[in-house]
Amino acid sequence: MPHSVHPLSSLDTPAAIVDVARMQANISRMQQRMDTLGVALRPHVKTSKCIPVAQAQLAAGARGVTVSTLKEAEQFFEAGVTDILYAVGMAEHRLPAALALRQRGCDLKIITDNALSARAIAAFGRTHGEHFEVWIEIDTDGHRSGIKPEDAALLEVGTALHEGGMQLGGVLTHAGSSYELDTPSALEAMAEQERAGCVRAAERLRAAGLPCPVVSVGSTPTALSATQLQGVTEVRAGVYVFFDLVMHNIGVCRTDELALSVLTTVIGHQTEKGWVIVDAGWMAMSRDQGTRKQKHDFGYGQVCTLDGEPLPGYTVIGANQEHGIVAAATSAGTDVAAQFPIGTRLRILPNHACATGAQFPQYHALSPDGGLQAWDRAHGW
Amino acid sequence: MPHSVHPLSSLDTPAAIVDVARMQANISRMQQRMDTLGVALRPHVKTSKCIPVAQAQLAAGARGVTVSTLKEAEQFFEAGVTDILYAVGMAEHRLPAALALRQRGCDLKIITDNALSARAIAAFGRTHGEHFEVWIEIDTDGHRSGIKPEDAALLEVGTALHEGGMQLGGVLTHAGSSYELDTPSALEAMAEQERAGCVRAAERLRAAGLPCPVVSVGSTPTALSATQLQGVTEVRAGVYVFFDLVMHNIGVCRTDELALSVLTTVIGHQTEKGWVIVDAGWMAMSRDQGTRKQKHDFGYGQVCTLDGEPLPGYTVIGANQEHGIVAAATSAGTDVAAQFPIGTRLRILPNHACATGAQFPQYHALSPDGGLQAWDRAHGW
Repeated sequence: MPHSVHPLSSLDTPAAIVDVARMQANISRMQQRMDTLGVALRPHVKTSKCIPVAQAQLAAGARGVTVSTLKEAEQFFEAGVTDILYAVGMAEHRLPAALALRQRGCDLKIITDNALSARAIAAFGRTHGEHFEVWIEIDTDGHRSGIKPEDAALLEVGTALHEGGMQLGGVLTHAGSSYELDTPSALEAMAEQERAGCVRAAERLRAAGLPCPVVSVGSTPTALSATQLQGVTEVRAGVYVFFDLVMHNIGVCRTDELALSVLTTVIGHQTEKGWVIVDAGWMAMSRDQGTRKQKHDFGYGQVCTLDGEPLPGYTVIGANQEHGIVAAATSAGTDVAAQFPIGTRLRILPNHACATGAQFPQYHALSPDGGLQAWDRAHGW
Repeated sequence: MPHSVHPLSSLDTPAAIVDVARMQANISRMQQRMDTLGVALRPHVKTSKCIPVAQAQLAAGARGVTVSTLKEAEQFFEAGVTDILYAVGMAEHRLPAALALRQRGCDLKIITDNALSARAIAAFGRTHGEHFEVWIEIDTDGHRSGIKPEDAALLEVGTALHEGGMQLGGVLTHAGSSYELDTPSALEAMAEQERAGCVRAAERLRAAGLPCPVVSVGSTPTALSATQLQGVTEVRAGVYVFFDLVMHNIGVCRTDELALSVLTTVIGHQTEKGWVIVDAGWMAMSRDQGTRKQKHDFGYGQVCTLDGEPLPGYTVIGANQEHGIVAAATSAGTDVAAQFPIGTRLRILPNHACATGAQFPQYHALSPDGGLQAWDRAHGW
């Protein structure tokens, strides 16, 4: 397509571009995998915080969404999504907001991993005549929150909820340490560790006479690596919808599957150093440099042509708030001003789609026919 | 103040708190220093993107503002600020927006560091009958953009603007490499390098018969380290208004001068590991870990009590999107659940105030009398 009629020529920069065809392929890929494994998919919308993206996921077969804040819960409920899991340990001061959502008809589930919080939820629920649906968070990999599958606290928490009049809906886990892996065998083993630990927790609750209908596991890497999910009812995953360079380094996607890029304009050069100065700094890319500790360090992002073709070796090697420094190991002393003239538009693939997307009030969704649509996303709490 | 009536008890978390007394002290400190050095202060509002903050800076004596995007220019012009410097190399596609602001009465200055852009500005200006005021960006430390003081390109750019019918308003520089320093002597030397280089550029332009009324230098570290600013007319600095841990490590502020903190709630523990899980993850703090390569690594931030007193040794050692992990080197195996019970509110001092502030749609400004005001800030481009 000639640059003079390129659909991305008229946007201001920096801009967050979603390649809709790639996004749809990512959505289909994950949905089909979950269908094959016999589980439901509950996408984590914290990655996009964008109604059209979630609608595409739901249209493809996803059942409900996962959110990381009650602001997202309100955003998606107002857009007509009722099956919402708020997957961060419930803070007591947020119970009134959760109650309000449920009273408005939102089928909101909340989570806990400790007895104090479980009892607070139950007490508040009884006071307000509300049988909150609560899932217990399980720690299957030492990554963050949760109760270990064999811990006595699991039954204590389950009992506090069930006998406290709440609806014990199930267990969930998130093997976030999967982000530190990069071989298929290690990922497959972690997926199995995640599954087995969560299923074990469910079995212990049931053996104690407590209800545990849902068994929810997931991260994008384990979702794409599990070979069987016996005992699991649903999988949660977020970043797959766009993928990113961290996911590429982990090994679960190719760079041509990355659906989010930042459109930027060349505004200057430092030719002796082989630097191309662009208007995408850390405010646009975010400060996430997750690839730095992985097999391939992409700096603040992989530089591509306006059509999205990677320019091998060119990354954003440094960033200030509104300036990015593009260079390659071999670019010092080359004629970067001729290769990347002032005004050239480039696209940058991000380290971490969840972080980069958050820097923008909206995405620009680019369709294969060249059509562009503005898709708003949420910011804040 | 008893926690039961603490003004910060009722906010949802995470929340961005501005300590107004500290902010005012920072504003006064910088203004007085600039007054003593005999130069004007043009604060960089990219740090706060917040009208009340800039109004406090202007009330204290600042003359005009610096912005990093035309969206900030529009934000501040609409709030009544007319003297605005857009301090990122001008991209041709943004000229219509700059023109519109000037035609509405905004005294907007734009900048350039290359002849191609200078000629594009001049051509556009002539076409639209607009004498843009343009400053030339000077590279005094190899950090980023700009023309070196002795470079022939300086006169070429100056001539292109002046003979092209534009108003050559002056020169500006930003010694961003000052962020890599941490001794008073190195900072003083860099401040002098910044001053001398920019003044030299001005002298060369004037010797060639070109106008150069303004000589604008600055970064927070050099502004606070310069001992004399002969030949300089104004200083630009941004982050001083709140300060942050990066500035503390550089040595230009104490931790009790940090005016921005993130309020957070404890939502869980991993006691064996000595972890306290809080609801401020990287979405709240940003991914900026600028202190990692400095003398003291504060992780994602220094943990403080609700009243803002630092808890020595406790930092946010890890972060996911909505979870922060608080720990100290000595906390493993201690009773963190007793020391930081579920529901405890803490405050976290950030690595980089410009990055952390950007994660929030608004600040909550806390006055000494306990009063709280919501101050909106801008997001995006």
